[in-house]
Amino acid sequence: MSSAAAKPRTAITPCREQNYPEWYQQVVRAADLAETSPVRGCMVIKPWGYSLWENMQRTLDGMFKATGHRNAYFPLFIPLSYLEREAEHVEGFAKECAVVTHHRLEAGPDGGLVPTGKLEEPLVVRPTSETIIGEMFAKWVESYRDLPLLINQWANVVRWELRTRMFLRTTEFLWQEGHTAHATREEAEAETMQMLRVYADFAENWMAMPVIPGLKSPAERFPGAVETYSIEAMMQDRKALQAGTSHFLGQNFSKASDIKFLDEEGQLIHAWTTSWGVSTRLVGGLVMTHSDDDGLVLPPKLAPAHVAIWPITHKADDPHAITTFCRSLAAELRAKTYHGRPVEVELDERDRRGGDKKWDWVKKGVPIRVEVGPRDMANNVVTVFRRDRPHNERASLPHAEFVGSVVATLDEMQDGMLARARAFRAEHTRSIDDADEFRAFFAAPKGDDGPTPIHGGFALSHWCGDAEMEAKINADLGVTIRCIPIDRLPEDDGPGTCPFTGKPSERRVVWAKAY
Amino acid sequence: MSSAAAKPRTAITPCREQNYPEWYQQVVRAADLAETSPVRGCMVIKPWGYSLWENMQRTLDGMFKATGHRNAYFPLFIPLSYLEREAEHVEGFAKECAVVTHHRLEAGPDGGLVPTGKLEEPLVVRPTSETIIGEMFAKWVESYRDLPLLINQWANVVRWELRTRMFLRTTEFLWQEGHTAHATREEAEAETMQMLRVYADFAENWMAMPVIPGLKSPAERFPGAVETYSIEAMMQDRKALQAGTSHFLGQNFSKASDIKFLDEEGQLIHAWTTSWGVSTRLVGGLVMTHSDDDGLVLPPKLAPAHVAIWPITHKADDPHAITTFCRSLAAELRAKTYHGRPVEVELDERDRRGGDKKWDWVKKGVPIRVEVGPRDMANNVVTVFRRDRPHNERASLPHAEFVGSVVATLDEMQDGMLARARAFRAEHTRSIDDADEFRAFFAAPKGDDGPTPIHGGFALSHWCGDAEMEAKINADLGVTIRCIPIDRLPEDDGPGTCPFTGKPSERRVVWAKAY
Repeated sequence: MSSAAAKPRTAITPCREQNYPEWYQQVVRAADLAETSPVRGCMVIKPWGYSLWENMQRTLDGMFKATGHRNAYFPLFIPLSYLEREAEHVEGFAKECAVVTHHRLEAGPDGGLVPTGKLEEPLVVRPTSETIIGEMFAKWVESYRDLPLLINQWANVVRWELRTRMFLRTTEFLWQEGHTAHATREEAEAETMQMLRVYADFAENWMAMPVIPGLKSPAERFPGAVETYSIEAMMQDRKALQAGTSHFLGQNFSKASDIKFLDEEGQLIHAWTTSWGVSTRLVGGLVMTHSDDDGLVLPPKLAPAHVAIWPITHKADDPHAITTFCRSLAAELRAKTYHGRPVEVELDERDRRGGDKKWDWVKKGVPIRVEVGPRDMANNVVTVFRRDRPHNERASLPHAEFVGSVVATLDEMQDGMLARARAFRAEHTRSIDDADEFRAFFAAPKGDDGPTPIHGGFALSHWCGDAEMEAKINADLGVTIRCIPIDRLPEDDGPGTCPFTGKPSERRVVWAKAY
Repeated sequence: MSSAAAKPRTAITPCREQNYPEWYQQVVRAADLAETSPVRGCMVIKPWGYSLWENMQRTLDGMFKATGHRNAYFPLFIPLSYLEREAEHVEGFAKECAVVTHHRLEAGPDGGLVPTGKLEEPLVVRPTSETIIGEMFAKWVESYRDLPLLINQWANVVRWELRTRMFLRTTEFLWQEGHTAHATREEAEAETMQMLRVYADFAENWMAMPVIPGLKSPAERFPGAVETYSIEAMMQDRKALQAGTSHFLGQNFSKASDIKFLDEEGQLIHAWTTSWGVSTRLVGGLVMTHSDDDGLVLPPKLAPAHVAIWPITHKADDPHAITTFCRSLAAELRAKTYHGRPVEVELDERDRRGGDKKWDWVKKGVPIRVEVGPRDMANNVVTVFRRDRPHNERASLPHAEFVGSVVATLDEMQDGMLARARAFRAEHTRSIDDADEFRAFFAAPKGDDGPTPIHGGFALSHWCGDAEMEAKINADLGVTIRCIPIDRLPEDDGPGTCPFTGKPSERRVVWAKAY
């Protein structure tokens, strides 16, 4: 009893500190973002989660179009022989491919249906589309005048994962994959960097999730790429999440698919290609960056709804008047524009207790909650709760003042979330120059029998480039090089010495445990 | 030579009258909407075609949301046992299912990759999602308070088709599928009709494609439905295209998936469900309704671009001034709003001949083309071509007048396209009361060795409801009942006599050859 009284009431059990992985699953469920499906490793994205994804899609799509890309759609199925054209590529994906082998069902000997109509060549459900898109690019590109070819696809892809987790790693997921072809290496490299910057911009300025853009070490490259770049974010358990990747493919795939063009001198040469993608994994990253022990916390710029309003009518003399007041308030808010869309309002007139409604909207992460009871209406005020403050902290605001300030409040919340996430990352990022300190930083604290306590963070340490040492550290500590930052970090102090080999190192890289 | 001179120049060979199916393929290619892919039966939707689909999606999505539906996403794969739960349903789809049987690839005896990791239960790539969504609905619905459940999904589906045609019938296609559950039969029936009306509204008021909404005969029902409704459009070869369907599923699928709820009296009963869908087939319907022998004709409300502008600079003293003039014109147009989006402008500054550019934009169906040469600029006029007029009919309009009238012109074109399509349908719709006249109406004219000349149309004839006679007419003439109209058509004259059986008939139905 006494321990329950000492602990503030929270909506999610267990809390982050107790069991982070389970907390994550509970936040996703409590917010009604998604749930597991009976199909192994596949999830169902529910309306609240899908709406969040739609907002991400709309924003990213606008950014892709503003940088000259156009959407297209390519087949779900890839003939096995296409996948085999790029040796590293097929090696990287062969172990996780869903394979279609038959094209009909017929009654079998025991009456149940069995697959029949065996295909001459099996079809792989796309794990990514470089090979099938490459085949089409080869038809579309003849001359330098056809370049650059700047294409994006919004699609589902399938990678047969053994251990799945909603949004973060699922067998089927939704994503976008950009595919471009260029006349020169320099142009393709510039495209690779441009899209990495677009992703970083989106992560920071829309998701309020700070990221480190950087180059992957060869061990972490996309299969078939010359270079892979990524954006890396720190989750609240201090692990890294790779939130988007941009690949410079060189001429590897243009040679595999024979994408050739006549240059201005009449020479027939292979194009230079890129690919880049983000997925529904971003939803998981958003959840893990901002949510708290009361559930989801949404950055206003991507929230499916900005404001939830409910009338408190059970003690009212005139419940209808309160409902009317709330509807009119909703209309006033919806007439306002917040970053390119109307302020979105959920008007909750369900026949349920106010306390239940309050918790529903807390758990769903709506930035601003508004309760209107008889006394509020009599005084022409509204009771306002902010999701970035404790759930029971309320403010009584004059009606007009609330409406007039709602957009500024949302902006303030968005900025506050980014600042808070940045501070969290800074707090758990350490420059480490000593191998023992490095091991201590990442050593899991001895806890009870329960889940491993939260520990570690981002270690900025020198690395000489030795792949064997990188592999050994991963094997020993479960820590990988997340990226070699392309921007100068505050902690960056130029060349130094690799703490593991004692060899010279050009710069610090980011080490972390990762999703 | 003389015959070529007698025939006006057109962009598409063959013309509609000569070979309609081939004309269709050529229009799709000339407009760069899509092309066939190396994956059997699957097409690649190219940017111009995908942008058209995006405009359709955006409009329909708004209509679905305005009627209370919310988007979600369900797995691509359906366990075989789920499909088997509804007997008619599985019977209807078993013959065209892509089946995933393995989840990895490994080197086989001859070195090439072979599927391994056999699944215990095969997975079907969704041909439609009633069964998997039903499984989830059963978890989500407990009480009447959870109803209605109004969900929509934008997704890809696969039906293994032997004969495919771009957009009209492909193995993989993109669509939306609405799935709803209701507490009463009446509510579910009302939903079925509401969505049929939404589709009809979209077809007529956005695609400028007149449709007849009606009930399908039992022979044409969706497998597992109690009733299927559709919208039926007449293409320019006078065949019918089923452009959207809305199904009242009764309790068939709720029993198959066990979707039960406690009603207000505390009784546990099965919900009543509906499903409804339109697909990328709409793009094919749009092409076949409006296009001509110069290529695609786009209804302005869905066109990826409303205006194409190109400078004629090769004879100009100051090419740069013309380009600047065109850019400024584009900016003025883009500042205008046409049905919820900016007027979209393609500014064609490619290094190509003006004549080539003109034909590109004709074939792509852009509603308004604008050419600006040195003389135009000197006089502050623009040379304007409309896609609904002959390709060489031009008007010289003062700059300001053109900009000021562009939205009205687009509206006029949209209305004109609908009126023209309505007139075409009226011209080729006939009330027929005699079996011989019916046969003559649908008999293919004897032509040369080439393709069957365009013939027939919609026959409004009485039908007594006899399914055997319906099947016989289909077998003999290739003609089916497209629908039993739910609105009173001008030709509708109440009850009559079935011309085939002599039995009484309640009303005329629509007979036609169909896609």
